[in-house]
Amino acid sequence: MTTLETDLADLYRGFASERLIPLWTEIGDLMPPEPRSRAQPHLWRWQTLLPLAERAGELVPVGRGGERRAIALANPGLDGAPFATPTLWAAIQYLNPREDAPVHRHTQNAFRFVVEGEGVWTVVDGDPVAMRRGDFLPQAGWHWHGHHNVSDRPMAWIDGLDIPFQHFAGATFFETGPAEVDTREAPDRSRSERLWGHPGLRPLTHLSPTPATPLLAYRWEHTDRALADQLALEAEGVKATVEPGHAAVRYANPTTGDDVLPTIRTEFHRLAPDTATASRREAGSSVYQVFDGAGAITVADRRWTVERGDLFVVPSWQPLTMATDRGLDLFRFSDAPILERLNLHRTREDQP
Amino acid sequence: MTTLETDLADLYRGFASERLIPLWTEIGDLMPPEPRSRAQPHLWRWQTLLPLAERAGELVPVGRGGERRAIALANPGLDGAPFATPTLWAAIQYLNPREDAPVHRHTQNAFRFVVEGEGVWTVVDGDPVAMRRGDFLPQAGWHWHGHHNVSDRPMAWIDGLDIPFQHFAGATFFETGPAEVDTREAPDRSRSERLWGHPGLRPLTHLSPTPATPLLAYRWEHTDRALADQLALEAEGVKATVEPGHAAVRYANPTTGDDVLPTIRTEFHRLAPDTATASRREAGSSVYQVFDGAGAITVADRRWTVERGDLFVVPSWQPLTMATDRGLDLFRFSDAPILERLNLHRTREDQP
Amino acid sequence: MTTLETDLADLYRGFASERLIPLWTEIGDLMPPEPRSRAQPHLWRWQTLLPLAERAGELVPVGRGGERRAIALANPGLDGAPFATPTLWAAIQYLNPREDAPVHRHTQNAFRFVVEGEGVWTVVDGDPVAMRRGDFLPQAGWHWHGHHNVSDRPMAWIDGLDIPFQHFAGATFFETGPAEVDTREAPDRSRSERLWGHPGLRPLTHLSPTPATPLLAYRWEHTDRALADQLALEAEGVKATVEPGHAAVRYANPTTGDDVLPTIRTEFHRLAPDTATASRREAGSSVYQVFDGAGAITVADRRWTVERGDLFVVPSWQPLTMATDRGLDLFRFSDAPILERLNLHRTREDQP
Amino acid sequence: MTTLETDLADLYRGFASERLIPLWTEIGDLMPPEPRSRAQPHLWRWQTLLPLAERAGELVPVGRGGERRAIALANPGLDGAPFATPTLWAAIQYLNPREDAPVHRHTQNAFRFVVEGEGVWTVVDGDPVAMRRGDFLPQAGWHWHGHHNVSDRPMAWIDGLDIPFQHFAGATFFETGPAEVDTREAPDRSRSERLWGHPGLRPLTHLSPTPATPLLAYRWEHTDRALADQLALEAEGVKATVEPGHAAVRYANPTTGDDVLPTIRTEFHRLAPDTATASRREAGSSVYQVFDGAGAITVADRRWTVERGDLFVVPSWQPLTMATDRGLDLFRFSDAPILERLNLHRTREDQP
Repeated sequence: MTTLETDLADLYRGFASERLIPLWTEIGDLMPPEPRSRAQPHLWRWQTLLPLAERAGELVPVGRGGERRAIALANPGLDGAPFATPTLWAAIQYLNPREDAPVHRHTQNAFRFVVEGEGVWTVVDGDPVAMRRGDFLPQAGWHWHGHHNVSDRPMAWIDGLDIPFQHFAGATFFETGPAEVDTREAPDRSRSERLWGHPGLRPLTHLSPTPATPLLAYRWEHTDRALADQLALEAEGVKATVEPGHAAVRYANPTTGDDVLPTIRTEFHRLAPDTATASRREAGSSVYQVFDGAGAITVADRRWTVERGDLFVVPSWQPLTMATDRGLDLFRFSDAPILERLNLHRTREDQP
Repeated sequence: MTTLETDLADLYRGFASERLIPLWTEIGDLMPPEPRSRAQPHLWRWQTLLPLAERAGELVPVGRGGERRAIALANPGLDGAPFATPTLWAAIQYLNPREDAPVHRHTQNAFRFVVEGEGVWTVVDGDPVAMRRGDFLPQAGWHWHGHHNVSDRPMAWIDGLDIPFQHFAGATFFETGPAEVDTREAPDRSRSERLWGHPGLRPLTHLSPTPATPLLAYRWEHTDRALADQLALEAEGVKATVEPGHAAVRYANPTTGDDVLPTIRTEFHRLAPDTATASRREAGSSVYQVFDGAGAITVADRRWTVERGDLFVVPSWQPLTMATDRGLDLFRFSDAPILERLNLHRTREDQP
Repeated sequence: MTTLETDLADLYRGFASERLIPLWTEIGDLMPPEPRSRAQPHLWRWQTLLPLAERAGELVPVGRGGERRAIALANPGLDGAPFATPTLWAAIQYLNPREDAPVHRHTQNAFRFVVEGEGVWTVVDGDPVAMRRGDFLPQAGWHWHGHHNVSDRPMAWIDGLDIPFQHFAGATFFETGPAEVDTREAPDRSRSERLWGHPGLRPLTHLSPTPATPLLAYRWEHTDRALADQLALEAEGVKATVEPGHAAVRYANPTTGDDVLPTIRTEFHRLAPDTATASRREAGSSVYQVFDGAGAITVADRRWTVERGDLFVVPSWQPLTMATDRGLDLFRFSDAPILERLNLHRTREDQP
Repeated sequence: MTTLETDLADLYRGFASERLIPLWTEIGDLMPPEPRSRAQPHLWRWQTLLPLAERAGELVPVGRGGERRAIALANPGLDGAPFATPTLWAAIQYLNPREDAPVHRHTQNAFRFVVEGEGVWTVVDGDPVAMRRGDFLPQAGWHWHGHHNVSDRPMAWIDGLDIPFQHFAGATFFETGPAEVDTREAPDRSRSERLWGHPGLRPLTHLSPTPATPLLAYRWEHTDRALADQLALEAEGVKATVEPGHAAVRYANPTTGDDVLPTIRTEFHRLAPDTATASRREAGSSVYQVFDGAGAITVADRRWTVERGDLFVVPSWQPLTMATDRGLDLFRFSDAPILERLNLHRTREDQP
């Protein structure tokens, strides 16, 4: 060992004892040329998920303490944490007939998306909101909410939250409310839809912008029609699609036109039969759920054939391509608002 | 005449010859304790307006040069100018069967509101938009537009613009396009509605905020339902109305949640039977048109009984009260965005 | 007279009796291809203005009622109104030794600019602010303010306000305070400068954005240095000037980076010796005051040689060119924020 | 083992094999009632840090690859990562006489703060910026920058970056430039200061808001004077301090009034002699460096006596109290913009 080596070893021991770490040994990992996500591309199949959720419905009660019968997707790259991506939580939640998920509130922003079934009401600040196939139900942070199943059948759906991000940032507050949802009402439309569900119309009683959407349900009939309209416009020669055969909408906060939640972007994509997308990268991570149809998904060097209910993760800056013969409907959520609001968002379309 | 008087007379002559005017002789008019509008409260009756418009339809051709068969409300306080208020233009426009109003564009922001009839299409940047009773059709500045009547009947409607404001501010640009509208299409829904008419959904191809709304028609069925929903929510004990029995919506730009036009606010108000409003003042001026029902309107010391189609002006800071026995539906437009964006907006509710 | 002529005459009489005016007879004036301002280009010479203000100082007391010994520039195109442009008020104000201009507040936004002299304090919400040559002193609407002259000499300066705009829009509120300013303090720096006058630093006690600047004095030493820096940078090859030899700064609200006042833009321009500007047009109107040097000004078909203190008006969309042999310093104010915030602002640089 | 226990074990094995994790076993850690940061309160003493940096200066070259001779504070709660807090990087950087730190750019936002010494220039996009005691030098993401020491003495300073946040979010891009800084200029003021360093004045050539500040140096003389002004105003009875004896400024972007960097808030705090602060909590994490004086710091259950150069970490929601007999000047940086822009920011002042 040379003197320099000895001296360096001393120096590094000095660093370690004082809780110091040099940049020059770490910079390759810390500051790579392009984003490297620890999360991996990964697919979870609905036909595997649902039976496990049903089995949990038989064995595990839902109630105060555990709060929700929700089972989270744990990305294989994230050291065993129950996180789909570094910032996003995705889970299947399951409620048996006449069960209640107790009332609580938390700073985490959340939503529910329903790939099949109906019968559960989510009750937000006392407003019961029916959940049905194709509906998207945002749930902004720090609002009281519980769920109850008024039907004779169990129901499963997808929860998305920013739990990993808030866990990381130390931003989480949580409070419990009543153990049971205090309403058994099942109105056709929620109060929020009656106030906010009219296109381009704002109630004069609610004119201030709110950080998250006040509209608690984005119904399938509207989403479906918007996508059909885009494809029909495309056929008439009007610019209305992302690329040929690829219709898409973003769910928006009617008080600002911005994303429905401060930390989570949500979109619905429809690929017409015989459509293939360009390869695209985006800084930040996404989770997709197949709503209908079937197709082939490529994320970096992974390739899957997907069908209804399947969920997959696209890590930051991994190229994504989607293709379908018979058509493919996908729900998507991502952490894009986090990156955009902090001036860090980037996208790239790769040349074929 | 004293020496001082003589000297002052000399001084004032000196001012005049140099195009100078002292503040101290003018301040009472220039800086009153509260807004004094030169405009006066005034009512125009639909049953008087419509026959004059019909007669103009018989006698006056529509075409390049005159551009529109539009007849403006001229407020009696505004020195013979064709202005409803200092900032706002309001006119009845009339189109005979198969007539065209030629294509042009201007910086003035505009809208149409239809109190009765149908059959005319307004074509904005090539997008034909049907006009029917109860519809509100915004028309942002500097977009090409013309109108054509495809039906066998004449049609009349209301135009609102910010002509007086832009005339005052020296902001007006104007260009002519083709003398005839280049489409005879009459689709059920305009392209803009197919892209933008889905509540809370934005096309992924159009994500930037725009200064005016991209939605070219706000249909009566939505407005009517939103107002009915507010009154029903009120009956259930939910805060949804401005005051008891008084439902109201603001037309909004879905890309921002803000007003549909940068200079003009538009609203629809519904008073349930046996409703009387509080007395309210607002800095800035408004024009109302009765859409349905009947009622009694008080503006400062003026009082009118109004019915379908009647138009009235509320000048700045004049107190307004509205009352109805059998119900009253009103369309309203105002210059509130001008005052709000310049930090000059004020309102006051007077104690009864 | 033909039948048609007779019928038309009847129709127009009907319009008149119902206070209606057809668009087709007025459109040429109302909607010209480019802005036509009623205001005219006009010059007022300081050597004429100042003696008249001095004479007013001898003959006219200042006090409650008249409020200010201010003499307004009355544009020859504006029908005898005391308005420099349709939107802007410009006046010379004059205060004798030991006089007070009484305390009041109004919704009008205001500023003072000092072309020569010193000795007057403007007191804003109790904060005394010295006024000296080259200083720019904004005064946002609805703040209490008075002036007092603590020196043995009279002082004159320029006031700029949005009186014409607020008069037009019916937005004016006004309240009187004490007849005398309640402080004789004459500190070197105002409280506002001690809180806000440090570049890029905000007090932690004042973190919310305010619609107008909280900084009550923009001192000449800073303006002068900023302009000298721009010209020196230009000489070093760094992009720092509007065009060769033409340095310029905008006075900004440190809480937003935006204009100092919601309705008035203020700038200072410096032309180095032997500089000539391009010809430029802008929608909206401006007033310039020469601060130092001399030059030749062309506005549309008017041409003036100007020197210290001279004031001139540039109406909307009139081309402006400035040239100087020995250098020219100019203060400028305009109504650009009104047009910008309402999406109506346009500029054009004419090819030589 | 009961049947239920067996069944549950089966279920959990099923979860594990499918990369699923139930919420109900994790919720206590994931969704605590109040933020729990893994980071710990921790203190690093300047008298320990500096000799280690000097020793690194003797043993470790600086150049391409390692890029910087920077030694990072590694919070004991963060599993050996070189991160001061979950979101923030803090390091001491050291440059020998005539050394260059090579040119590169990265999406990470950065700044330098100088607690002692001078002689190094940081060169940003070709603009050389001197670094001297008390200066704060922001460095927005994706701008080219290097450093060079033009003096005969070594110099050490503090770097702050959002490396941990961008590492977490997968947002990092990095590019290398020349290995040597291409200028040996040492101007008194940088170009950026000559363009942007004049209070309340914006160059007309640069009117668009930028996401980070264009001013590259916030000089000590201004910071010091602003703090002295606040304490003097407090003595005169004017509200200018956070609490008695506690002056503070936030470094601001002059184009927006907002934080200097999109992800990092920076402040300077001055406690007058014999001052003690209230106990405060804030969601999100901070790093402080003592600039001058001495005092006692309490963070949750930790208590330190601090002096010049010492650095300490305040994790999310940990209560902080500061007290001093002879006065204390502190520089602070935090991740507050991340939380604020995502609607997650909270503070609480604890009752004593």
